Amino acid sequence: MLIVQKFGGSSVANPERVRNVAGIISRAYQQGNDVVVVLSAQGDTTDDLIEKAKQINPKPSKREMDMLLACGEQESVALMAMCIEGMGFPVVSLTGWQVGVHTSSAYGLARIYSVDSTRIREELDRRRIVLVAGFQGINRYYDVTTLGRGGSDTTAVALAVALKADLCQIYTDVDGVYTADPRHVPDATKIEEITYDEMLELASLGAQVLHNRSVEMAKRYGVRMEVLSSFSGNPGTIVKEAVNTVEKTYVSGVAQDKSIARFAVVGLKDVPGIAYKLFSLLAKNKINVDIILQSIGRGNTKDISFTVSSDNKELCKQVIEEAKRTNDLQYESLDVSTDVAKVSIVGAGMVDNPGVAATMFEALFEAGINIHMISTSEIKVSVLINIEDSERAMRAVHAKFFQ
Amino acid sequence: MLIVQKFGGSSVANPERVRNVAGIISRAYQQGNDVVVVLSAQGDTTDDLIEKAKQINPKPSKREMDMLLACGEQESVALMAMCIEGMGFPVVSLTGWQVGVHTSSAYGLARIYSVDSTRIREELDRRRIVLVAGFQGINRYYDVTTLGRGGSDTTAVALAVALKADLCQIYTDVDGVYTADPRHVPDATKIEEITYDEMLELASLGAQVLHNRSVEMAKRYGVRMEVLSSFSGNPGTIVKEAVNTVEKTYVSGVAQDKSIARFAVVGLKDVPGIAYKLFSLLAKNKINVDIILQSIGRGNTKDISFTVSSDNKELCKQVIEEAKRTNDLQYESLDVSTDVAKVSIVGAGMVDNPGVAATMFEALFEAGINIHMISTSEIKVSVLINIEDSERAMRAVHAKFFQ
Repeated sequence: MLIVQKFGGSSVANPERVRNVAGIISRAYQQGNDVVVVLSAQGDTTDDLIEKAKQINPKPSKREMDMLLACGEQESVALMAMCIEGMGFPVVSLTGWQVGVHTSSAYGLARIYSVDSTRIREELDRRRIVLVAGFQGINRYYDVTTLGRGGSDTTAVALAVALKADLCQIYTDVDGVYTADPRHVPDATKIEEITYDEMLELASLGAQVLHNRSVEMAKRYGVRMEVLSSFSGNPGTIVKEAVNTVEKTYVSGVAQDKSIARFAVVGLKDVPGIAYKLFSLLAKNKINVDIILQSIGRGNTKDISFTVSSDNKELCKQVIEEAKRTNDLQYESLDVSTDVAKVSIVGAGMVDNPGVAATMFEALFEAGINIHMISTSEIKVSVLINIEDSERAMRAVHAKFFQ
Repeated sequence: MLIVQKFGGSSVANPERVRNVAGIISRAYQQGNDVVVVLSAQGDTTDDLIEKAKQINPKPSKREMDMLLACGEQESVALMAMCIEGMGFPVVSLTGWQVGVHTSSAYGLARIYSVDSTRIREELDRRRIVLVAGFQGINRYYDVTTLGRGGSDTTAVALAVALKADLCQIYTDVDGVYTADPRHVPDATKIEEITYDEMLELASLGAQVLHNRSVEMAKRYGVRMEVLSSFSGNPGTIVKEAVNTVEKTYVSGVAQDKSIARFAVVGLKDVPGIAYKLFSLLAKNKINVDIILQSIGRGNTKDISFTVSSDNKELCKQVIEEAKRTNDLQYESLDVSTDVAKVSIVGAGMVDNPGVAATMFEALFEAGINIHMISTSEIKVSVLINIEDSERAMRAVHAKFFQ
């Protein structure tokens, strides 16, 4: 079997953890598998490098930042190779350019165009364990690029695609994907299997286990993924196209997201195309909008509420206020709040079961929690509530569906 | 003018020093020069990386060590580029593989085969300052190699050769090449100009300013070098083929070397080829021998004394003792001492002035210093003395020639 394994920064943060991971890798190799491993930079290395850069230039160019940050993963693979050598297994470490991870030119946010599998194939043919520096590639100028957040997961899936791997294992510090965040919902249980779509909804809803980019790529190319812990040794969660639906509940998991800002644009002049105007303005500024609620017009005005990621709060505020000054947008007042959280349920079985949303609302009603906004898709229902109700809401909803 | 500048690790050890060096680089650029800069890893970075490796594997492979260590220089050029950007100058950093520094496969001790100047030329044509990671290259497997000690100096000279640079400036923490080490000989003065050959003798004699590899390459290709300080702003020492001999003293400098082990093989069976046997044995074990003294035979035995670098002491001892056990070499006893130092005078003018050696011996006699061994070449005289006499000997010899 050809396995791609990926280990995050916390899994290789110190010599002891490096040894632990080297053990996981070499066991997979000893079982007769071809093993390709993608590593992130150790622990705080990336943050330390960013701090070093800031001391020298508070606004460094992204090209040079990528040149700097790529060192973190290179160090990581070299050290892991030394550890595996020490255990007596044949191993070789490779950087992004050595593997031929060709990316777009967007420094800091590069997208993978192609992976040249020649070198890795050669090394596997020699029965070597192959370690690849994650998060990095080269663009058409032969300059070093990095892939941005979740980059090493993406590298792992891209390698799995290029090598037609049988399995792509993402090792992290949690045991897998849970029906809810176990830190907040003690009754949460691990999900054995989940579909790509459910995983995508859970990731974007703040479950923070896998990054969407890697799951999207895995879905597109049908890469079987497994999320599991580098510490526990337990089996993890398998992510694949369709899951065994016998005994499947309608809902796979409950997630919360507190990094949300809610905007209410009050007293918008009710002319045709006003919503289009507002949201195309935000799109132009690359602000992603999540839930949207539009009131029915009162006289010649109406209100539009929507949520954005709290990262975009300031930019979004500026853009809308600027549009008022330039008369591009006429409204009475703008209200911005970050005291909100989004709680969502996700499940591929939901689409055939119209009662699911109602069950969720019932749980919240019983817990006395007020709902501000609602958003639904084929496989999820999200509600916006007060931030202080968030954990209680998760527990109430989780108990309703999983007990 | 096309200038290659090289800055060592101590010159870029912290943000303040990085800014200082960025100032030197940008001034050369503002004067209208094409500027290519080779950097070492910052301060203790390389030692820190080695320590990290040792914690994981006390005997890592050289390939993985090179993969790890190359990060130090990559970090260094990225940070310097950020600093120069911040000052408003166009700049780009490049690694060894991006520049195309092609080397032999000997990890940790790679030799440069060729440098592809295409990328650097392109960047210079765009009027950018080009920063190149020193000490590193790639071999024919496209694996990362490092050049060993003095590697960044060698990178600088190799780039100067490939680019046909007008000058190769080696910035360090001293003002240039002195007539003796100023820490030990307060009267030492800076040498304005020195020949490649004199520089080679001084370097190998422990003056520790430039590494021989870089000077040898500069000599072979006629690269004009300058050794100068990144801190003082003073003019340094020019190293070139021939120097202006008007007013030239016969002696350019005095140097000492305390990293020496003296071996005395006593009572060697005096048969033809015995010296050949001994030294070919050492050569086979890659032990470089420096001064050799052979006694006139007494009866059917003789004694041979020689010096090696103290790094080679243990290996040399093992080799000779092993040869006795296997009867390859018959001798009575072996005496090894590291309580010795070598003091040398170097000067291209010496060859035409037979009195120079005698003047040196006179100085040592007047200071009451005993000489154990003597070695001479066309441009140097070395003496082996007790280690505790070393500084005093240097001062006495220096005073004789330079006051």
